[in-house]
Amino acid sequence: MNTRSSKESQTVRDRIVDAALDEFYGSGFHGATMRTIGNRAGCSAANVYNHFESKSELLVEILRSASDAQFTATRNALRKAGDDPARRWEVAVAAHALFAARMPRECLVANTELRYLDDVDRKRVVGSRDAQEQLFVELAQAGVGKGVFVIPRVHEAVTAVLTMCSGIPLWFRPDGPLTAQEVAEDYGRFALNLVGYRSD
Amino acid sequence: MNTRSSKESQTVRDRIVDAALDEFYGSGFHGATMRTIGNRAGCSAANVYNHFESKSELLVEILRSASDAQFTATRNALRKAGDDPARRWEVAVAAHALFAARMPRECLVANTELRYLDDVDRKRVVGSRDAQEQLFVELAQAGVGKGVFVIPRVHEAVTAVLTMCSGIPLWFRPDGPLTAQEVAEDYGRFALNLVGYRSD
Repeated sequence: MNTRSSKESQTVRDRIVDAALDEFYGSGFHGATMRTIGNRAGCSAANVYNHFESKSELLVEILRSASDAQFTATRNALRKAGDDPARRWEVAVAAHALFAARMPRECLVANTELRYLDDVDRKRVVGSRDAQEQLFVELAQAGVGKGVFVIPRVHEAVTAVLTMCSGIPLWFRPDGPLTAQEVAEDYGRFALNLVGYRSD
Repeated sequence: MNTRSSKESQTVRDRIVDAALDEFYGSGFHGATMRTIGNRAGCSAANVYNHFESKSELLVEILRSASDAQFTATRNALRKAGDDPARRWEVAVAAHALFAARMPRECLVANTELRYLDDVDRKRVVGSRDAQEQLFVELAQAGVGKGVFVIPRVHEAVTAVLTMCSGIPLWFRPDGPLTAQEVAEDYGRFALNLVGYRSD
């Protein structure tokens, strides 16, 4: 395959992924078909099958890359956050929340359609998600270790915080009264409060 | 209709509602059909149509009665909660969380399938949900009014707390290490922390 056709093929693949995301978001995993995905992407179902062997494969690709991108955003924010465990926790939650506000389709599909994957495919997606959760557990544990967070069960608090962030796409609108950045900062503050942190 | 046939009809109706809940939960709104719902309830699709004119009508019935039951549980808990706004907020969130832990199918279907209803049907469901949210907004405002809660935007905090509760069915297991009651109390405490309440 020469460079040009490789590029074209990449473009079609991206269009298919984007179309599948719209279809999963609008009609659900069960409502979407390879044909409706192809229609939306401007190609045939056969062409969709050239790139992805099944609808599940498309969902895995979408969920895994969204999770990876969200994880990367959080780690990038942490790189500039310094050493204070409270600040690191707040910054990480704010970055996670910001992603949710900016990538609503990916986050909603991840929340609602993951359960339709079989066990093997679900494991492929959940690995990336578990790694993210583990990062937040470590950040919370650092605060508990320093005695600045007061929570009896770290995992439970982390789950509560990540769930709260995952709900942002359900109500946040880019043209609403709050910017994505303001929402993200509020959520960082909520998370800091939730773990019983006191600044004084 | 005499008493006996009215009772039998009620039983079939209940079985259909329960079967529909399982189907919506397992296969999603788009994956479920009146036939698969009938199969699961032990009756024909025609019989399902005798009780509900459409799949949407079934989803409306399920979501509305779940929301009403959760609302009732919260108000019952508040009746015994006294006057302190912090205590009232904590008790209300704990009751809401307890319902989510004990009625996972209803809560998950409400979270994921509501978007498939058309505007009119969605309004019929959302009214009950909005009333619940309004109650929490009033409870939070009471705390802000007394100066014991410190949050810039009450609605945003209420949404965060209700979302966090709605995620409980995603991980809570009755045979897990925590009881539903323990989870509910932890969530009450999280909510109290989140709004910046300090007991001293």
